[in-house]
Amino acid sequence: MEYKILGKVNSPDDVKKLNDSELHILCDELRDCIISTVSKNGGHLASNLGAIELTVALHRAFSSPDDSIIFDVGHQCYAHKLITGRFDRFDTLRTKNGISGFMRPDESEHDPFITGHSSNSISAAYGIYKAKRISGEDGTAVAVIGDGAMTGGMAYEALNNAGSGRSNFIVVLNDNKMSISRNVGALARSLSKMRNKPRYHRFKFALSNFLLKIPFVGKYINRAVFVCKEAVKGLVYRNNVFSALGFNYLGPVDGHNISAMESLFKIAQTYNRPSLIHVITIKGKGYSFAETSPKNYHGVSPFDVYEGADSAEKVNFSKTAGDTLCRLAEKDDKICAITAAMTEGTGLSNFSQKYRSRFFDVGIAEQHAVTFAAGMAKAGLKPFFVVYSSFLQRGFDQLVHDVAIGRLPVRLLVDRAGIVGEDGETHQGLFDMSFLTAIPGICVYSPATYKELEYRIEFAADYDAPIAVRYPRGGEKETIDFDYKSEYSVIEGNGEKAVITYGRLFSEACAAKSILPDISIIKLNQVYPFSEALVNEALKYSELHFYEESVRNGGVSEHFVTLLAEKGYKGTVCTHTVENKFVSGASIAEILKDNMLDADLIVKSLS
Amino acid sequence: MEYKILGKVNSPDDVKKLNDSELHILCDELRDCIISTVSKNGGHLASNLGAIELTVALHRAFSSPDDSIIFDVGHQCYAHKLITGRFDRFDTLRTKNGISGFMRPDESEHDPFITGHSSNSISAAYGIYKAKRISGEDGTAVAVIGDGAMTGGMAYEALNNAGSGRSNFIVVLNDNKMSISRNVGALARSLSKMRNKPRYHRFKFALSNFLLKIPFVGKYINRAVFVCKEAVKGLVYRNNVFSALGFNYLGPVDGHNISAMESLFKIAQTYNRPSLIHVITIKGKGYSFAETSPKNYHGVSPFDVYEGADSAEKVNFSKTAGDTLCRLAEKDDKICAITAAMTEGTGLSNFSQKYRSRFFDVGIAEQHAVTFAAGMAKAGLKPFFVVYSSFLQRGFDQLVHDVAIGRLPVRLLVDRAGIVGEDGETHQGLFDMSFLTAIPGICVYSPATYKELEYRIEFAADYDAPIAVRYPRGGEKETIDFDYKSEYSVIEGNGEKAVITYGRLFSEACAAKSILPDISIIKLNQVYPFSEALVNEALKYSELHFYEESVRNGGVSEHFVTLLAEKGYKGTVCTHTVENKFVSGASIAEILKDNMLDADLIVKSLS
Repeated sequence: MEYKILGKVNSPDDVKKLNDSELHILCDELRDCIISTVSKNGGHLASNLGAIELTVALHRAFSSPDDSIIFDVGHQCYAHKLITGRFDRFDTLRTKNGISGFMRPDESEHDPFITGHSSNSISAAYGIYKAKRISGEDGTAVAVIGDGAMTGGMAYEALNNAGSGRSNFIVVLNDNKMSISRNVGALARSLSKMRNKPRYHRFKFALSNFLLKIPFVGKYINRAVFVCKEAVKGLVYRNNVFSALGFNYLGPVDGHNISAMESLFKIAQTYNRPSLIHVITIKGKGYSFAETSPKNYHGVSPFDVYEGADSAEKVNFSKTAGDTLCRLAEKDDKICAITAAMTEGTGLSNFSQKYRSRFFDVGIAEQHAVTFAAGMAKAGLKPFFVVYSSFLQRGFDQLVHDVAIGRLPVRLLVDRAGIVGEDGETHQGLFDMSFLTAIPGICVYSPATYKELEYRIEFAADYDAPIAVRYPRGGEKETIDFDYKSEYSVIEGNGEKAVITYGRLFSEACAAKSILPDISIIKLNQVYPFSEALVNEALKYSELHFYEESVRNGGVSEHFVTLLAEKGYKGTVCTHTVENKFVSGASIAEILKDNMLDADLIVKSLS
Repeated sequence: MEYKILGKVNSPDDVKKLNDSELHILCDELRDCIISTVSKNGGHLASNLGAIELTVALHRAFSSPDDSIIFDVGHQCYAHKLITGRFDRFDTLRTKNGISGFMRPDESEHDPFITGHSSNSISAAYGIYKAKRISGEDGTAVAVIGDGAMTGGMAYEALNNAGSGRSNFIVVLNDNKMSISRNVGALARSLSKMRNKPRYHRFKFALSNFLLKIPFVGKYINRAVFVCKEAVKGLVYRNNVFSALGFNYLGPVDGHNISAMESLFKIAQTYNRPSLIHVITIKGKGYSFAETSPKNYHGVSPFDVYEGADSAEKVNFSKTAGDTLCRLAEKDDKICAITAAMTEGTGLSNFSQKYRSRFFDVGIAEQHAVTFAAGMAKAGLKPFFVVYSSFLQRGFDQLVHDVAIGRLPVRLLVDRAGIVGEDGETHQGLFDMSFLTAIPGICVYSPATYKELEYRIEFAADYDAPIAVRYPRGGEKETIDFDYKSEYSVIEGNGEKAVITYGRLFSEACAAKSILPDISIIKLNQVYPFSEALVNEALKYSELHFYEESVRNGGVSEHFVTLLAEKGYKGTVCTHTVENKFVSGASIAEILKDNMLDADLIVKSLS
């Protein structure tokens, strides 16, 4: 399909020149382009479809890059990318060296800040806003944040700070009643009440819209601003959570009505109080499959546009974890599951339906999730917090302070550990080995197979101290048989060389061994801490190769090598990890290959 | 002084039996005991003095330990400790093996959860509360949280979760208008409005109080509860931040009126909605010095009760850091300072007064602080976030995601790094080396002297990537002269043994060298990353001893030893770190000694 408007839009300035009917066409074309690209490359669909008119309105009311527009969690930034000069390359979305699925400052000057993790946009935007004021520069900064992201404590910290002074700082709340699935918590209920205020339908911003279009602006500006302010006052519902935090609440406004939003964004800039503009959008807007079932179209794999995405759950580590928890929960009514807005992604859909009273979606609130679990553990329950590795980073202090000091048996199921692929540097699970093993007393496991994962989850249920079971995104690969119930397993060879590894890389090591049968493989089932027997086993070999899907610093290889060095080990050691760097998006296989962590490269380094 | 009531209180049950005049005496005695103990041992004074009546009321309305009462940040828990069986040992407060200054579950069954870091109480209490309901147990859980701690995002995450369901969960907001110094942010302003509602003075809870005292409770309970509810309804100010988060807002109530609070706590238990009870207290209540100047009596060293604490700032690393920032800010108007409610502790008082427009106290909000700084750095300012090591743990994800991926020049001044002494396991700064060096691209320095600290702060101001300068609590100790401007310095000896160290332990190593002049000392000025020259220097020695004030896992010793091992180093290596464990409170000297990290023990291990 040829895009007659979108094809000519090279910058936000071009969007500003379009008339109403052209804008309408532009939005249709943006939708079409996003749907067709995501259907080929996978990506975030429903949230992006919902934010198209909002994005267009933002780029008409503000002047990027002088004004910094920060979309919280890249989920909503595809339209933004398309109208800020990246249309030509958009077919490379989420491929190696292609367009990132999230905002990326090194990709465009229109992406002022990286936003792969939720709820950071207000902090970043307010920092930029204050910097511009302190430096005496022009321009402003706007945070565009979803109602889901608004459940994160970080957003509240930022509102509390930004709401305390005089400024014309603007936060746009993109409320689609969803975080990833249905939004949860008390804030969601409050938002729902605000959405339903009758004035919304009655007022529709016609007046302020009209006033801003008056010609000879210089002459009438004072009056216009004054009248607008008075008019908009009627829309301000005082005494909600945002006004309590010092924000001028404006809205709600229809998030698919470009001119209404544009007016409000312009009006808010004339205030000397920070404003929060409540925009109501429909997740999945314009693609019927996605509108009907937005949670199935949050993050999707490639799909057929006319058939819709396949919603059947595939067997993978996540589903295995969820199914195992269900099975255990049936026999043991102390088992609870906690998720931070990731019910589907972590395989907990069934659990959430079967064991409603023991299932907790706490919102995008990893800090709370960890300590909430600690409270439950303290009172004798068996809580499992199921969370992506990169998002667990938000709970680091809580793991140290609330879990580990008291040795409370919080069970962490760390999903998406290691390389995650196309989502790129913000989502790679490469730090959990370092931060989990730095915390005294957390026992870490990293299964290579579904069977091993099931066993370790059962084991964790009965374990009486902090424990983490980490597993990768995707499915198991073939391995040589091994005794997964022991602390470590040795696949013996005849040589002097041994590979020490765990998790998904064990499969790669097994593949390497089929080519180099002499090598031994020491698979760590209990990855940390090490037993004395394990260390003695390693000391038998004259050459030890560590393979680890983690950054090098603080990983298990370092702990092991240091221990060996202190014991006077004189053999050769070699660590193969992801070096201390961030890893961009590409397929998992590509990334493992690039980091010398696949079977071929194991063979090369050991030959 | 003999305590005629307090001396006989062995448990909360004893408090329940006291009449009004006895309660009055008890509070006087608690005050006296806290003032005299803190004047000898140091500790948190003002916040504890403000919470005495509140604590007594809580223990009358609830039944600890069946009901779990969690005081957010131990700052307010001394009275609680005194009336829950720890009066006899209270003179050991904050000494080695003595009573901890914070809640500690291993100290008493009345301390249900550890609370040394702020804002975790609601999460923990709600976890315990839900566990009790799921297990069908009796009892409840109450979080007692200050207005300062309420600025932490974690508290909001917990309110959002706890406010979403039907329950009689109770949060008590102890509002003394302070976090550590004057509370900041928009929430503080909202609270101030709520405090000033006129009904507070008019109503005074006389009615509900009276009703709850009606005899033959069984007969009248229904009516009493009904009437109370109606009466209390008048006190509910709907539409504040707490009610938006699903809480029934009750108050404000005078936090020095035991019976008023007691009534309200009992009433809230009869609801089937979560309640937030707003209690107004006076920080420092009953000790005139502390009432007048509460921020000087937040955390204090031993002082003379009749003279008051010495408020003069001593020269130490914190003050040196603050003074250096002031000096730099005078010449360079891009320099900003950010604190998370720690203006005084981090030595920023002068800066906050001299450079008001470039000083930001963001509340107890380390997550926001890091990303706010990142936004500022992105826009060309030179932000310094000055923060205690153990509190920076809350910003780990933000350092990874918002700072390091974009290589934004956020300057971290990491105060209280290493052993902090009496505040114990929750406050030791033993993890920052591990989590900072695990993050790609953060350069870490750790000065041993004031001069070196000054130099590194200047260096950081002009550095164009993420950088951390970490320094210990307290003052500098004597060192041998060294070139602090280079990446590393060698104090040469004649032998084959070298000590590799940095920061405060360099002084200990220097002291050891005066006894063992043959040893060489390699002082890391740039602690991480290592230069090639440094590694080559180390390779010259046949015995390397690493001394590090950090947990072992993920520390610099491990990085260094692994590097040496991969280079085929065949000498002897020995790492001396704080083992992977939590370190209880004692003096810094005692802790260093116990962990083999002082000069005497360096001598022993090297002889």
